Amino acid sequence: MTRSALGGTPHAEVRSSSSDAWRSRPDTPLDDETLERIHGWWRAANYLSIGQIYLLSNPLMRTELTRDDVKPRLLGHWGTTPGLNFLYAHLNRAIAERNLSTMYVTGPGHGGPGLVANSYLEGTYTETYPDITQDDEGLRRLFRQFSFPGGIPSHVAPETPGSIHEGGELGYALSHAYGAAFDNPDLLVAAVVGDGEAETGPLATSWHSNKFVNPAQDGVVLPILHLNGYKIANPTVLARISDDELESLMVGYGHKPYVFVGGFDDEDPVSIHRRFAELLDEALDDIVEIKARAAGGDTARPMWPMIVFRTPKGWTCPPEIDGKKTEGSWRAHQVPLASARDTPEHLEVLRGWLESYKADELFDDSGRLVADVASLAPEGELRMSANPHTNGGLLLKDLRLPDFRDFAVDVPTPGGSISEATRVLGAWLTEVVRLNPENFRIFGPDETASNRLQPVFDVTDKQWNAATIPDDLDDHLARAGRVMEMLSEHQCQGWLEGYLLTGRHGLFNCYEAFIHIIDSMFNQHAKWLKITREIPWRQPMASLNYLLSSHVWRQDHNGFSHQDPGFIDHVVNKKAEVVRVYLPPDANTLLSTYDHCLRSRDYVNVVVAGKQPAPNFLSMDEAVAHCTRGLGIWDWAGSEVAGEDPDVVLGCAGDVPTLEVLAAADLLRQHLPELKVRVVNVVDLMRLQDEKEHPHGLSDRDFDTLFTTTKPVVFAYHGYPWLIHRLTYRRAGHNNIHVRGYKEEGTTTTPFDMVMLNDLDRFHLVMDVIDQVPHLGSRAAVLRQEMSDARLRARQYTRDHGEDLPEVRDWVWPDAGDTATQVGGPQAATVSTGGDNE
Amino acid sequence: MTRSALGGTPHAEVRSSSSDAWRSRPDTPLDDETLERIHGWWRAANYLSIGQIYLLSNPLMRTELTRDDVKPRLLGHWGTTPGLNFLYAHLNRAIAERNLSTMYVTGPGHGGPGLVANSYLEGTYTETYPDITQDDEGLRRLFRQFSFPGGIPSHVAPETPGSIHEGGELGYALSHAYGAAFDNPDLLVAAVVGDGEAETGPLATSWHSNKFVNPAQDGVVLPILHLNGYKIANPTVLARISDDELESLMVGYGHKPYVFVGGFDDEDPVSIHRRFAELLDEALDDIVEIKARAAGGDTARPMWPMIVFRTPKGWTCPPEIDGKKTEGSWRAHQVPLASARDTPEHLEVLRGWLESYKADELFDDSGRLVADVASLAPEGELRMSANPHTNGGLLLKDLRLPDFRDFAVDVPTPGGSISEATRVLGAWLTEVVRLNPENFRIFGPDETASNRLQPVFDVTDKQWNAATIPDDLDDHLARAGRVMEMLSEHQCQGWLEGYLLTGRHGLFNCYEAFIHIIDSMFNQHAKWLKITREIPWRQPMASLNYLLSSHVWRQDHNGFSHQDPGFIDHVVNKKAEVVRVYLPPDANTLLSTYDHCLRSRDYVNVVVAGKQPAPNFLSMDEAVAHCTRGLGIWDWAGSEVAGEDPDVVLGCAGDVPTLEVLAAADLLRQHLPELKVRVVNVVDLMRLQDEKEHPHGLSDRDFDTLFTTTKPVVFAYHGYPWLIHRLTYRRAGHNNIHVRGYKEEGTTTTPFDMVMLNDLDRFHLVMDVIDQVPHLGSRAAVLRQEMSDARLRARQYTRDHGEDLPEVRDWVWPDAGDTATQVGGPQAATVSTGGDNE
Repeated sequence: MTRSALGGTPHAEVRSSSSDAWRSRPDTPLDDETLERIHGWWRAANYLSIGQIYLLSNPLMRTELTRDDVKPRLLGHWGTTPGLNFLYAHLNRAIAERNLSTMYVTGPGHGGPGLVANSYLEGTYTETYPDITQDDEGLRRLFRQFSFPGGIPSHVAPETPGSIHEGGELGYALSHAYGAAFDNPDLLVAAVVGDGEAETGPLATSWHSNKFVNPAQDGVVLPILHLNGYKIANPTVLARISDDELESLMVGYGHKPYVFVGGFDDEDPVSIHRRFAELLDEALDDIVEIKARAAGGDTARPMWPMIVFRTPKGWTCPPEIDGKKTEGSWRAHQVPLASARDTPEHLEVLRGWLESYKADELFDDSGRLVADVASLAPEGELRMSANPHTNGGLLLKDLRLPDFRDFAVDVPTPGGSISEATRVLGAWLTEVVRLNPENFRIFGPDETASNRLQPVFDVTDKQWNAATIPDDLDDHLARAGRVMEMLSEHQCQGWLEGYLLTGRHGLFNCYEAFIHIIDSMFNQHAKWLKITREIPWRQPMASLNYLLSSHVWRQDHNGFSHQDPGFIDHVVNKKAEVVRVYLPPDANTLLSTYDHCLRSRDYVNVVVAGKQPAPNFLSMDEAVAHCTRGLGIWDWAGSEVAGEDPDVVLGCAGDVPTLEVLAAADLLRQHLPELKVRVVNVVDLMRLQDEKEHPHGLSDRDFDTLFTTTKPVVFAYHGYPWLIHRLTYRRAGHNNIHVRGYKEEGTTTTPFDMVMLNDLDRFHLVMDVIDQVPHLGSRAAVLRQEMSDARLRARQYTRDHGEDLPEVRDWVWPDAGDTATQVGGPQAATVSTGGDNE
Repeated sequence: MTRSALGGTPHAEVRSSSSDAWRSRPDTPLDDETLERIHGWWRAANYLSIGQIYLLSNPLMRTELTRDDVKPRLLGHWGTTPGLNFLYAHLNRAIAERNLSTMYVTGPGHGGPGLVANSYLEGTYTETYPDITQDDEGLRRLFRQFSFPGGIPSHVAPETPGSIHEGGELGYALSHAYGAAFDNPDLLVAAVVGDGEAETGPLATSWHSNKFVNPAQDGVVLPILHLNGYKIANPTVLARISDDELESLMVGYGHKPYVFVGGFDDEDPVSIHRRFAELLDEALDDIVEIKARAAGGDTARPMWPMIVFRTPKGWTCPPEIDGKKTEGSWRAHQVPLASARDTPEHLEVLRGWLESYKADELFDDSGRLVADVASLAPEGELRMSANPHTNGGLLLKDLRLPDFRDFAVDVPTPGGSISEATRVLGAWLTEVVRLNPENFRIFGPDETASNRLQPVFDVTDKQWNAATIPDDLDDHLARAGRVMEMLSEHQCQGWLEGYLLTGRHGLFNCYEAFIHIIDSMFNQHAKWLKITREIPWRQPMASLNYLLSSHVWRQDHNGFSHQDPGFIDHVVNKKAEVVRVYLPPDANTLLSTYDHCLRSRDYVNVVVAGKQPAPNFLSMDEAVAHCTRGLGIWDWAGSEVAGEDPDVVLGCAGDVPTLEVLAAADLLRQHLPELKVRVVNVVDLMRLQDEKEHPHGLSDRDFDTLFTTTKPVVFAYHGYPWLIHRLTYRRAGHNNIHVRGYKEEGTTTTPFDMVMLNDLDRFHLVMDVIDQVPHLGSRAAVLRQEMSDARLRARQYTRDHGEDLPEVRDWVWPDAGDTATQVGGPQAATVSTGGDNE
């Protein structure tokens, strides 16, 4: 393969920045009128923010403010809001001057009133919610609905036009911003980082995203560290280190910091605005230069500008309330005047505070924003609240998907060939990457190759804009590429979320155990999806697809600390309409499953699949049929008699459990040939659930037909056994279901020893059948003892030899003959003598 | 309250550094003999590490190495090991010279063979595991057991003497190290941070721990950034930024970096060792100076030294294998010679590699380490592998606990008083803090006051060693204090884990929704506990106690993004013997529960409790009895007839569900007086489970007596309703259990609207009873409609007024009369008009 000077693999051309997207501001002076206009906008946004928090009625105080105008429950957060409003106003000036498509990501999502206010001032809010009109009555409704029963949330939320970033858990503003910037070469993402948020781990590492963004083909993130000094009850760390340390930190993160300090003295507003406007222009001009250099072929990583924005918390609120410092303190975090309704003194303070913004100058008699101030905003889609990237579904294009059937592995008989399932998937993904060079990315924390997806490196690279060493050590690293790897599951998740929310596609491949690192991020994303599905103007977006490999059953290298199949349990707590869980048992079912996932919208799809050589059971036609059903009887594996109920059902979900169930079925066939065994494999876990609980749920009738209502079911499951009970507890026959799964039983280093340790092995499953099926007679008792002995022998063998008993390890489904060969890529022929990578 | 110049609250004296703990090295030259000894130790440790990964037998190659000496499955990680061994050898020299109690925390936990090797060389391994003798046979066993069925894990693990830090999920090395250092003023914690690990979020923010450590009263963490350049398949970010950026980053993090680069050329080993030894001495001398300044009263935050240790990955392994660069590349990450058993060429490479360490010079004829090399190690507990802090249970002292009964709130009748439960707990914790000034800390991400534990600030402060502003804004910040707050749940969890693992006590108070941030850290800790309970020499340690407040039902300020009660579900997946979950319904039960938790050992205790004013139901005597049972009938709330089965059981777990169940019981009593209602409250959730599944599980007999086997059970539960089904699915009457809980149903801003939104409200519960109890007749049908109407009215009221219907909000248990008063601290009298803080 030929390689460029940058180590890149030749691949399809992707879009670079448009020639005129990044330009300096017009050569006009920054006049005082403009600065006054910015100040007017800021005052208006602040006024509307306070109004939302406090007022039920009388929005412009056209009559005297009374206690009845004040909300009975004051909910919301003022502290961060004036800073967000200030930045919004200034960005508007710059956007309009430069025609620069810009998104606004606000880490301090508490500042919901501010984002709503700006969106209202821009007109977007009224376009989106026509009952919130641009007049006094519209203002009243705007104020009343905020953090009010039946109204809107107090944080930035899916309901907020212009947002992709919920004001929930802190830490992901920069990851989301970079995710939005990838493959949007003409987009600026202004990302405000709260100094509280900056203390979180995910945020602390997300600064390094600048080593992964490509100046030529990606957009630009302008981080703005909003250093307002306080959290709920404490100062922030970054506000209490020296200026030198803070600047060193930003330089260490790879940024050129621009420091702004304002609001701590009685500086004239025009002067403050001039200083910030000039600083913002400098930073934006830096970006223009970087973009120009990149367009000229410079591939050096630039020191991207960032802004330190040090202003008082709750800026412009009363300096003191009840004799205690409020502006510039943690007391301004939330609602500074908690009893404005109940004490006349506080009501008076509120009135004075509101009056300080001189709303009469800003809104005309009808309650509409005056034209001069309104003219600050850019127009149409240049308004940050109307940027189409923030409603990604608007821009979403279907992926061009190659026919997965063309990537099928040959399965002459069940178990008649062997593949590494994820490697087979990798071959298909290679084509997905090739056909979709601008809107599909693969994310993972250093494990894409370990998870056997490395075929994709035939057509793309890992995007890496830190230094490279031009030799074979920097395998498949390039300035631009479709694979994003950083050893931070938080970053992978956050980048992918940002990428999806702005209308693109992707997947996150991860070790199963460590996906719990992003449990809480999954929560926030699932909540976002749940709400957006209820908002008509939010267009459907691509699903968030996980590929969890290196799973619990094959941690030969790593042991107990790397074993945890509980992400599935975590996921199924979220709304049924947004979560899907798939456990394809082999390569062809994995292909069929993933094709389905990449076509889906507004879901979180969790797919768990092995990467080790394992038998294939279903031809592609069978796999498609099986995946379409989601679960089904594998009649070739059972020993039923047509027209009769089986004596026992062997259920299985997951690749290793499926293998053990089949081996158990083989043993039963040999030793208890008259026993009528049914084998049911489950790919789509949600099928087990009641149709009333989950859209994929099976009807009781269908469930009962498959599993019977009276016969014992021995079920081998990939994860914690509880979940199968939880999913089936409403089913008629659930008392008969006996589940084997992962038991948190410590470590071992051979595959079969691992299943034995958790009593999920074929011998144990046969013993379970004997224990559950009544009246099997003395032959069964003898077989039970044989199974127990076989287990002990297998165990002892591992201890003596350090590997599994060959007849266990090499067992193949009897009909497969001795001819099982490896299929699905030349590399698959090499079976490692070790276990997983990592 | 008088305050010191540093803003500290006067509190009990705590121990500062001993006068002679921190001293410079003796004034003797660093001679070549010592450096040769270090080199010998390093060679020995490397040899033993490789032996563990590769060899089954013939440990010192006293006969010719054959394929049969090589393990059939090669599992383990070489890449990080030589660096860890190098540092270990050098620290040994310094420890012995300075008599400096030192722990070794290794972020790159993959380096298990290295830690085992050093512990063996120090003799600790043989003292701990006597069958691993100091001779040829002992070496054979040492090698064979590594990553072998029935042997030891490949990573650093509880089985490894000298470790508190599992080699599982990456990111927590520094948090653990600082946790160990708190309140151990004479302890050095050398903490190796892998450059892969350094990319994780938790690690990226944990550098800032240096703003929270007190130079006078805490120990010292010496971070060593092990910059070996590669992860599994990629270079690391920090290895691919400029030296200037890296140094700026460390300065920005508040450190003075010492940079060491070695191993990339043919520098003489003695020269390499001299350079590193001198650099280490400089760093340690810096620490001595800082300690002396602190002892002299200097309270400025020092720039603590840290070391950048840039060496080749897999240092000293073959530079190339099969013509591909191996040493100094990602190819050295795991097992560089994967087919040493199967190809003679690789076996030959392995032999040469092993021989390169000249083991004959290091081990005598019997296979024992030669005395000269052995003399490098310090003696006794100064050996890092034998440092008692690393087996914290050895040092653990019981807490001095004030009698929680003395802090009881008065409950004249059920519901006859009102308290904020966590504030009452705070009063008791204040005494716990006062009585245990050296071994108890409270951790939380900026929420200790928001969670109403602020009474503790009467006797202690938040420890904060960043800059302070000497006015009332820096409320309760001081250089030393028992409360640790940083806006990073990862840091809180990691610090607490390190603190507990080194033999102290503590609790972590957190918003319920965001505790999911540390789901995966909980996993690792629970696994550690599970294994340590099986290791006789590991002494029991204090439990990890959570206090989850600001829970799902009261997110009035924050809404949907702040709602998630699923941590409980996550926790119950772990081994039953290590997890406990408590849902105390009121203040006195919370006191009794927490007393129990702080006395317990080797558990993870999850306690969920509200912080809002809520009725108290049980007097302290009743609370103790109830908590001792874990669940029980509240006969005062029911309407049973002695000797007869009830018609329906109302179950409840959690404070809000308990309130709604009682209100429902009241409605039923009024409207269906003949209905025999039993109310069962559950404090200890694990009591619901089968005794065969959990040590706290109730026998079937007891369960059936409480819940009956035939009557309907309407159960109101704090969390996702699934869990109650999951815990009870084996019970005889489980088909009759009808659960209401949290349903992920979006946001609202008033408490009762929230329970209505999730169908957990009193009206819905009454409707459930009517639906479940057969033959109630027409009176019930009318009542059902009344309840439905009442619900709609209540809903409408919130939409009209923005607050809950007064008769709903102010409902009290009827026997309580009108006299319910607030008890439990003067602040409790002020009921916020808003909701939660934050």
